[in-house]
Amino acid sequence: MVGRHRTTDAFKAATHAATDMNGDGGTRFVLVAGSTRTAEIDGLSAAGADPELLAHTPAADAELLRYGGLVRAPAIPESPTGCLTPAVVTRAVVELLGLDVTVVDGGLSEPSGAPTVSVGARPGEDIREQDPVSSAPGAFEAARQFGRSIPADEVVLGETIPGGTTTALGVLRALGERGAVSSSLPENPIDRKRTVVEEGLAASALEVGDAADQPKRAVRRMGDPVLAVAAGIALGAIETDRAVTLAGGTQMATVGALLRHAGFDGPLSLATTAFVERDPSADVRGLASDLDLDLTVTDPGFEAAEHVVMERFEAGEAKEGVGMGGALALADRAGLDARAVRERVGALSDDLTST
Amino acid sequence: MVGRHRTTDAFKAATHAATDMNGDGGTRFVLVAGSTRTAEIDGLSAAGADPELLAHTPAADAELLRYGGLVRAPAIPESPTGCLTPAVVTRAVVELLGLDVTVVDGGLSEPSGAPTVSVGARPGEDIREQDPVSSAPGAFEAARQFGRSIPADEVVLGETIPGGTTTALGVLRALGERGAVSSSLPENPIDRKRTVVEEGLAASALEVGDAADQPKRAVRRMGDPVLAVAAGIALGAIETDRAVTLAGGTQMATVGALLRHAGFDGPLSLATTAFVERDPSADVRGLASDLDLDLTVTDPGFEAAEHVVMERFEAGEAKEGVGMGGALALADRAGLDARAVRERVGALSDDLTST
Repeated sequence: MVGRHRTTDAFKAATHAATDMNGDGGTRFVLVAGSTRTAEIDGLSAAGADPELLAHTPAADAELLRYGGLVRAPAIPESPTGCLTPAVVTRAVVELLGLDVTVVDGGLSEPSGAPTVSVGARPGEDIREQDPVSSAPGAFEAARQFGRSIPADEVVLGETIPGGTTTALGVLRALGERGAVSSSLPENPIDRKRTVVEEGLAASALEVGDAADQPKRAVRRMGDPVLAVAAGIALGAIETDRAVTLAGGTQMATVGALLRHAGFDGPLSLATTAFVERDPSADVRGLASDLDLDLTVTDPGFEAAEHVVMERFEAGEAKEGVGMGGALALADRAGLDARAVRERVGALSDDLTST
Repeated sequence: MVGRHRTTDAFKAATHAATDMNGDGGTRFVLVAGSTRTAEIDGLSAAGADPELLAHTPAADAELLRYGGLVRAPAIPESPTGCLTPAVVTRAVVELLGLDVTVVDGGLSEPSGAPTVSVGARPGEDIREQDPVSSAPGAFEAARQFGRSIPADEVVLGETIPGGTTTALGVLRALGERGAVSSSLPENPIDRKRTVVEEGLAASALEVGDAADQPKRAVRRMGDPVLAVAAGIALGAIETDRAVTLAGGTQMATVGALLRHAGFDGPLSLATTAFVERDPSADVRGLASDLDLDLTVTDPGFEAAEHVVMERFEAGEAKEGVGMGGALALADRAGLDARAVRERVGALSDDLTST
């Protein structure tokens, strides 16, 4: 097809009709998937993990969320103690509710078999370098434009980026916010994270709070590309009167912090899991209160499942990620029986781990 | 989510279950969207068109197919005489059948708001240059790997690339096949295309047929990145026993030619529209016969619609593209009433063109 073009402002009606026809009632689940070399720091996030496989985690999560299985990624992401990626839980809800999923490239370092929207984000460097996320300002603006035109009445926004709680801590400290972040490990290596953040602040010649009201500076100097892209999408969607739910724990709360420091003072929701709420090192309630985020905490009742995968979540592993808390909140809102969610999580987990 | 990974071979069962749950019965519609600077040659494909808008056509088609409306692209693609892009027809069928759609980046020169799978294809240069598609061999192999693992029992493969019939002609001549291609214009500027191809062959120091049995050489020297990526996906899907339908006219027949010259001699289907079949300059039947392609021709009966958009298709404009013929064949196979397709095409067209 070649030729002249007709400019139109009428796409919204058509788009919304189409969205409704896809059975998602105008709700779109958007996953921002990316990377930061901060994850490669020893002892920080995945002691003993194979860094090569770690780099594939966001691409694998995107494939699991979009297709329910792997396409190009070499392996199902798993914690050091054997807990499956929360993508399994989010995918279960996506299937049960028939949600439409869009993955945005927030700086992937490995290609994904899931289709992704490009906004110019590049993989983040180690935050102990001076300018680790140089693509952040451009990606933020392109993501904001995408957010302004994204076909949905409601956007539920999640993340996948190994090492992301450390970069979130970096951004929170640069903004002068409470430095309390969660961890995918049962024992949060929070002291190690604080040391890395201190080194990062020094490398960027920043004191705590120096980037208050300068969200782009904070995320470029101390953050990661996923935070920049997620903040851009959220802001664009908010500016065009779409409901936005930040689906996650302390990383998505940090996206909320970026929006607050960008001057947005309207209502903003954060939906996370009971696993994050139970983490005393995280203090997600304090963070949500500081940032005036309307917090929803959902407990999927995994203790009732008697399934090894769900037992590991109950033991405090993984806790959050790939929008798990937001997906569970959507399931709850839709009146979906928690047992139906658990059964689908169990079946998906069994399919993915059988050899 | 961070940590170790579990390698699994069991994704296929899970993937197929998920695909079925998406309501598409294991059929996935794959659109390869890309560009070639060959489209910028004057008088070739869109005389008088604004080249800047032309460059957005594949990105816009991808958005229309995926969302039913525009997201980032500036305008709905339209032929010089006002015929809407065939994406409208394909989208109508996608909605009616609930088909799952995946867009693969076959060298987009402008960003799309539709998510795309990356296989390393870059925009193609003018085929009158010496090495216009240097990314073709790498993109072909990456696309082949994607095709090997694509979650579907059946792949229906379409294209969108302005100028694509000229590059298809280039590849056919390099392979030594019949040089008969269609056009999106009512009057095929076939002589102009032949001149361009002759200049391209000379620039690449090729005689007609010199690249027989060398499909990668043919597509790199005389083709475009969409042909390379589509051939790779098709071959990978075939190698893993998935049914593949080439959805389109002479461009997708050229993908079939690449597969034949790669040594594949099994059954292969081409599904196009009655509009292409009626084009005497194209001779899609002769091409399909030469290449032993099982040809399906579908007539959507647009003359019965009394709708200006469909009348333009009846007048021989556009004819094919964005997998239109394959979509119509799927609708036919599913027993969908042709009138239902026409009504949805009409409603979508009205939504998209109202201002």
